[in-house]
Amino acid sequence: MKFTAFILDVLTDSVYPARITIEEGIFKEIVPISVNAQTKIDVEGLMLPGFIDSHIHIESSMMTPAQFARVAVRHGTTAVVCDPHEIANVSGIDGIEFMIENASTVPFNFYFAAPSCVPATSFETSGATIDSEDIEYLLQKPEIIALAEMMNYPGVIGGDDEVLRKLKIARMYKKPIDGHAPLVSGKDLDKYIEQGIVTDHECSTFKEAIEKKQKGMKIMVRDGSSAKDMEALFDFSQRIEFYRNQDSFGIIPNEVLSRRLHSPIFDFIVSDDKNPKDLVNGHLNESVKKAVDLGVDVIKAIEMVTINPAAHYGIDGGSIVTGSKADFIIVDNLDNLNVLKTYISGKCVFDGENVLFDAEEVQANNSMNVEKKSPCNFDIYFNGDECEVNVIECASGGLITQKGIAKLSSNDGIVQPDISGDVLKISVVERHGSNNVANAFIRGFGLKKGAIASSISHDSHNIVSVGCSSEMMAKAVNKVIDNGGGIAVVGDDFEDLLSLPIAGLMSNEDGLITAKKLFGLQKRAFSLGCKLEAPFLTMGFMALLVIPSIKLSDKGLFDADNFEMMDVIRN
Amino acid sequence: MKFTAFILDVLTDSVYPARITIEEGIFKEIVPISVNAQTKIDVEGLMLPGFIDSHIHIESSMMTPAQFARVAVRHGTTAVVCDPHEIANVSGIDGIEFMIENASTVPFNFYFAAPSCVPATSFETSGATIDSEDIEYLLQKPEIIALAEMMNYPGVIGGDDEVLRKLKIARMYKKPIDGHAPLVSGKDLDKYIEQGIVTDHECSTFKEAIEKKQKGMKIMVRDGSSAKDMEALFDFSQRIEFYRNQDSFGIIPNEVLSRRLHSPIFDFIVSDDKNPKDLVNGHLNESVKKAVDLGVDVIKAIEMVTINPAAHYGIDGGSIVTGSKADFIIVDNLDNLNVLKTYISGKCVFDGENVLFDAEEVQANNSMNVEKKSPCNFDIYFNGDECEVNVIECASGGLITQKGIAKLSSNDGIVQPDISGDVLKISVVERHGSNNVANAFIRGFGLKKGAIASSISHDSHNIVSVGCSSEMMAKAVNKVIDNGGGIAVVGDDFEDLLSLPIAGLMSNEDGLITAKKLFGLQKRAFSLGCKLEAPFLTMGFMALLVIPSIKLSDKGLFDADNFEMMDVIRN
Repeated sequence: MKFTAFILDVLTDSVYPARITIEEGIFKEIVPISVNAQTKIDVEGLMLPGFIDSHIHIESSMMTPAQFARVAVRHGTTAVVCDPHEIANVSGIDGIEFMIENASTVPFNFYFAAPSCVPATSFETSGATIDSEDIEYLLQKPEIIALAEMMNYPGVIGGDDEVLRKLKIARMYKKPIDGHAPLVSGKDLDKYIEQGIVTDHECSTFKEAIEKKQKGMKIMVRDGSSAKDMEALFDFSQRIEFYRNQDSFGIIPNEVLSRRLHSPIFDFIVSDDKNPKDLVNGHLNESVKKAVDLGVDVIKAIEMVTINPAAHYGIDGGSIVTGSKADFIIVDNLDNLNVLKTYISGKCVFDGENVLFDAEEVQANNSMNVEKKSPCNFDIYFNGDECEVNVIECASGGLITQKGIAKLSSNDGIVQPDISGDVLKISVVERHGSNNVANAFIRGFGLKKGAIASSISHDSHNIVSVGCSSEMMAKAVNKVIDNGGGIAVVGDDFEDLLSLPIAGLMSNEDGLITAKKLFGLQKRAFSLGCKLEAPFLTMGFMALLVIPSIKLSDKGLFDADNFEMMDVIRN
Repeated sequence: MKFTAFILDVLTDSVYPARITIEEGIFKEIVPISVNAQTKIDVEGLMLPGFIDSHIHIESSMMTPAQFARVAVRHGTTAVVCDPHEIANVSGIDGIEFMIENASTVPFNFYFAAPSCVPATSFETSGATIDSEDIEYLLQKPEIIALAEMMNYPGVIGGDDEVLRKLKIARMYKKPIDGHAPLVSGKDLDKYIEQGIVTDHECSTFKEAIEKKQKGMKIMVRDGSSAKDMEALFDFSQRIEFYRNQDSFGIIPNEVLSRRLHSPIFDFIVSDDKNPKDLVNGHLNESVKKAVDLGVDVIKAIEMVTINPAAHYGIDGGSIVTGSKADFIIVDNLDNLNVLKTYISGKCVFDGENVLFDAEEVQANNSMNVEKKSPCNFDIYFNGDECEVNVIECASGGLITQKGIAKLSSNDGIVQPDISGDVLKISVVERHGSNNVANAFIRGFGLKKGAIASSISHDSHNIVSVGCSSEMMAKAVNKVIDNGGGIAVVGDDFEDLLSLPIAGLMSNEDGLITAKKLFGLQKRAFSLGCKLEAPFLTMGFMALLVIPSIKLSDKGLFDADNFEMMDVIRN
């Protein structure tokens, strides 16, 4: 293939017209050409390197890697470094190998990181454990290019043997280690970095990011469905203030300072997670636009999703140079950044209308290793008329919960929810073989009737359900079990389901359909009275024990501030 | 050691005050502090990472590594990546191992690259050969972190087996490969880069540098004693013109363009070679100042000699961060960049007045494997009264020569130089065992009497001499031989010598003394009528066959344009 185009060159921060020859999927020759106003250039628009998301959990999109790729190429993404942390918690190495195998069926660049923290805690039942031996097995695979985010920062700082062993293995295999150390600073951060952990994507304030950067970490600025850190990290007024506060003697001249303000000092833009609806609407293309709106130089923003991650992870791509993989996109211009076409290995995979490859249907093994439930499994017992209970207080968009208290009545020894007071029931049904069920109360969902249930609940992905009665919850949970995983909404006169047969996390349908079905399901939940913006997402975080303040695992109610179990009934 | 100081942080492009703790040679803790006008900061001035010269041949300084270090730390240099190419041509692996061993005797960071092209050509006699097996032996050493500049670009492009083998070994050992490809462009450059060669320090024009950069190379901007490429490569008017010519449709907004002009797109500043006098006067500190004078942002210029080379070569250092080696310097301010103190591994090695470590005297083996010469060895014979000869035409500062012609008379069968017409005699005396002597004529030196001789002559470092008579040349050459190497100036009533007993390349004296002696010797050469600015340097390049157009090797006169031998006598 031979054509002429204007290239955005991230190596020289410039644009130049060239004749490009592609052979066998690589840039064979790129020759700058002279043009004038009369010259006809073959490609309308501007040629950019394909975008690289250097940190994403694909499972959050509820799509298989192949389906994810079909949606991502629409937005100019040509490569991802993905951490199959979610499926690893359900199916261990088998799950990771499924992801790698499925990824290989489509023309898209999937690079994998080995999940470092499975299970996340010992206070819950996960479907698998990934120990240091497994890590060594995984890091020997060519498809696995990094050790994924080391979330167990207390383990690193405290010197836990098994944690240190995993880190040592990654250093031994010379594979970069990704970090996850929210709010860790000072000496603790020094200890964390000392272990060779080089990136962090958890910075939520400029101050946090600058400390990590000053200590040598590379900073991933996150713009995902859950966490959105761009506004904080690209805040130029904070940056000026920061520089001026520090450099109170004016050592750096003002003109030097002002010149560099538009050049971000952080390294990558990543999504971390993208729910189906958000992914359908955009990926890094939208993040780059947002960064530019926040004042970042457009080419610098593009470098954060092209050459920077490529250089860090040793990925073939990230720039348009002779000898490298011909992964590129055509955008209309730098103002709009509308993706007109996407090419991978020199082949068009998105022509502006259609995606030009298919995703095979997956033969999924049922991952629901659990017996069907009766309503009585969801009951909480108390001998007396009234009792005081601990309540999980949740809010829209938040992973963090507050500790609440409620007074509830008890009928025939069974504690009743308070629908009008929005104190509903929440349950976590273990689905990996132990058959645990833990029940508690939650405020914030606002359901007036029915129940919802889902086999997505971070990090162990047991079945979580919120509802107005034990009967409805049993119905919703059993619907998830019957279908081998999914998200269910059950009302008096309907039962709706988004089927997630792959590990209970991913759909077997096209991504656009998954997004549409999820949207429909959400509307059903709203029809039951639900007040949360994203009820399934919020519910999915109610079992995530590592985030404050009160959560529910399959083993019971959990005090996430003090890292210990707690009772539901306070009497 | 604990103190407070303002740190120039090359990771966040900022300056901040901090309390620094150094233990066992590394930065143990760096804690930002708050200051106001009353705060007493321990360190007066600004703390910078030590400077790193990522490409230098130490032998050009005529100092041993230990002596070199003693001078370099005065200028804030704390690390070098050096290619012992010169000594390797004389003494092979033994020479390289001597350099490594000598380097280890001083507190300075020497990193070595394995010389890739010894000998440089087959048209001369060198003291040693480094083949691909030797390269493998060398690359296994921890002190050797790269394969040094691949000068044999015709061999790379033409696919020479032995050359490709050396490159393959370097890739196998994952050690970066440095390049040297002056004026190579287009498809030839593509082939060169394809072999994994990632840097180039030979760019002499902006256009050349930008092509290499666009093709993915890292560009070393050279500011040495011989080559000075900064003016060309940091020419901002050329850069604006370049961008505008290319981006004739104005795709990149003007304000984006102007902001980034002060940020160089090239990667490192290197010296390549520094003669004794230049090194005594300054090193990268002076280069950074020059870059700033040319319009480069001061912090960006500093990054080109700190974090950029450290990141590329995986050198511990280059920034002031916890856990890294405590190599740093104190400068007065960013305007003057006067080096007040230099620290390596947390220890002060230069206190502003004195260098705080010594260089041991070296027990040198005599590398002059050559018999003493008689005047008749320098005669050129012709039967007749007059003949036409090919002449090497040289000029001040130039490595490139022109082909000239002269008519000379012959007395008793011996061709006579034409002193008044500045047609002098030049000889190359092989000194590695074969006892070849090659004689020719040269114009440009301007000697009216006497002769000069030197055991430094790139790349094989045979003895080269220029003089007005065979007698004087024999005297000068024998003085070099008698002393086991050096630079000699011989007049009617004096014989002066700078002794270079180490491989005939390096002095055993303190660097400051070497520089002073060399300066005295140069004045002696001027007293003989010499018109060249740096006569020994120019003479040293007259045997460098890879540079056009006419040179002299120990095997005879050489046509460097057509890569073949040529006759002295034209009749």
